[in-house]
Amino acid sequence: MRICNSAREVRLALAGAPRPIGFVPTMGALHAGHAELVRRCRAECASVVVSIFVNPLQFEDASDLDRYPRDLEADTERLRDLGVDLLFVPSVAGMYPEENPFTIDPGPIGEIYEGATRPGHFSGVATVVTKLFHICSPHRAYFGQKDAQQLALIRSLVRDLDFDLEVVAVPTVRDPSGLALSSRNVRLDADQRERALGLSAGLMRARQAWEEGERDPARLAELARTTGLDYDYCACVDPDRFGTPAPEGPALIVAAVRLPGVRLIDNVALERAP
Amino acid sequence: MRICNSAREVRLALAGAPRPIGFVPTMGALHAGHAELVRRCRAECASVVVSIFVNPLQFEDASDLDRYPRDLEADTERLRDLGVDLLFVPSVAGMYPEENPFTIDPGPIGEIYEGATRPGHFSGVATVVTKLFHICSPHRAYFGQKDAQQLALIRSLVRDLDFDLEVVAVPTVRDPSGLALSSRNVRLDADQRERALGLSAGLMRARQAWEEGERDPARLAELARTTGLDYDYCACVDPDRFGTPAPEGPALIVAAVRLPGVRLIDNVALERAP
Repeated sequence: MRICNSAREVRLALAGAPRPIGFVPTMGALHAGHAELVRRCRAECASVVVSIFVNPLQFEDASDLDRYPRDLEADTERLRDLGVDLLFVPSVAGMYPEENPFTIDPGPIGEIYEGATRPGHFSGVATVVTKLFHICSPHRAYFGQKDAQQLALIRSLVRDLDFDLEVVAVPTVRDPSGLALSSRNVRLDADQRERALGLSAGLMRARQAWEEGERDPARLAELARTTGLDYDYCACVDPDRFGTPAPEGPALIVAAVRLPGVRLIDNVALERAP
Repeated sequence: MRICNSAREVRLALAGAPRPIGFVPTMGALHAGHAELVRRCRAECASVVVSIFVNPLQFEDASDLDRYPRDLEADTERLRDLGVDLLFVPSVAGMYPEENPFTIDPGPIGEIYEGATRPGHFSGVATVVTKLFHICSPHRAYFGQKDAQQLALIRSLVRDLDFDLEVVAVPTVRDPSGLALSSRNVRLDADQRERALGLSAGLMRARQAWEEGERDPARLAELARTTGLDYDYCACVDPDRFGTPAPEGPALIVAAVRLPGVRLIDNVALERAP
């Protein structure tokens, strides 16, 4: 596995790399969810590129940025074991040498749900992903369904700005209790972890109702709320624009909860009946 | 010369095209200034791609958009004669199928001079150029120095978002009277044309003073103003960010004037002494 720290090195290293190039952008602190992205990429692409970059532009909260877990050594080991060809670990100064860089404005989808709570977050995500796409020139890029709004945003980014690449969505990995894997889970103590289970449990309850025929978005969102949890939002939306879903689906129930010192998100897909 | 109307056609046509690919984005109504861009591109690149697209996103004034000169037949003939390999003429619906597309936010340079008079203009330029770069995948892209702020903006766009291509600046073409060629010049009647000469004449006056040792930006800008013309702005700026220039240069004097029914811009470079 080649490790590169600059865009220039990446371009040189990839000039003769076998095609197609697959790309998995991450912020490190890798868990089994990331491993799933990399495995899928490895299975489908001739060259596998992974980036680790904790992107300051997408953190609206300096303390969340500071406390974001980092473990480059363990991550590197893990990626080597997964058969990654190139690991790109840029510095903040290397990625943002200018004071007021050009950024991507995602429009309406950047301002709702996660975007409402985290102003500037999705602009930061779209900007860094644009830069990483330009540096790593992938034919396919892999994103987790766990960050459903980010996935919708990346799909729109690729479509609206005519990127010539395929976005591949990879299902959320959950631990046996149902909790969606997240790098922020390390901040949960045993008690909080227990309470956090209400998030995924609620979503599964709503999916059960959907499968039994419930089609009212407001009712589905209501069913997904677990009593005693502090929800930022819990809503039934269409998967593309996060607006009102079509009555027959497909839809997503997206939710965010606040626990002391950590905020978690999760979602469940409600598939159109076959 | 191959003519394509969709991104898909362009990609297919360019898949096997000789490298490097050179690209000249235009809004049509081609004149000798555009021809100069294309000739330079032809001389330096194995494949030459030109686009003609009057981009609604960069017109803040609907009447300017409506009145923007169009002559696709003459343009096509001209480009064929210049040895262009591929002409891309997309439709507005093809370029902007979505209602609220992702756009590029250029930050501070988008809000001064041309950006102050034309809010949203440079975001529109950066957005369409990003899309065209993604569709035409050029190794080199050619822009005229006549639109100096646009050129600075494109250089920043390429640098900040890590586009892997070279921006080539081509000197302004002037008619024998000194008037910079512009598609909007067709709107000038004989009398206005006479008055418009004051724009370039003033800039040449300031350059003369620079060559004779004048270094005060305010004084240089003052010298460039021709009495009786209605200036939107006339300023001495650094060529990269349009801020205060270094005392020893390089610098630009940029100016915009309003004549009845038409607004013209021009600039002159003040080179660092050798």
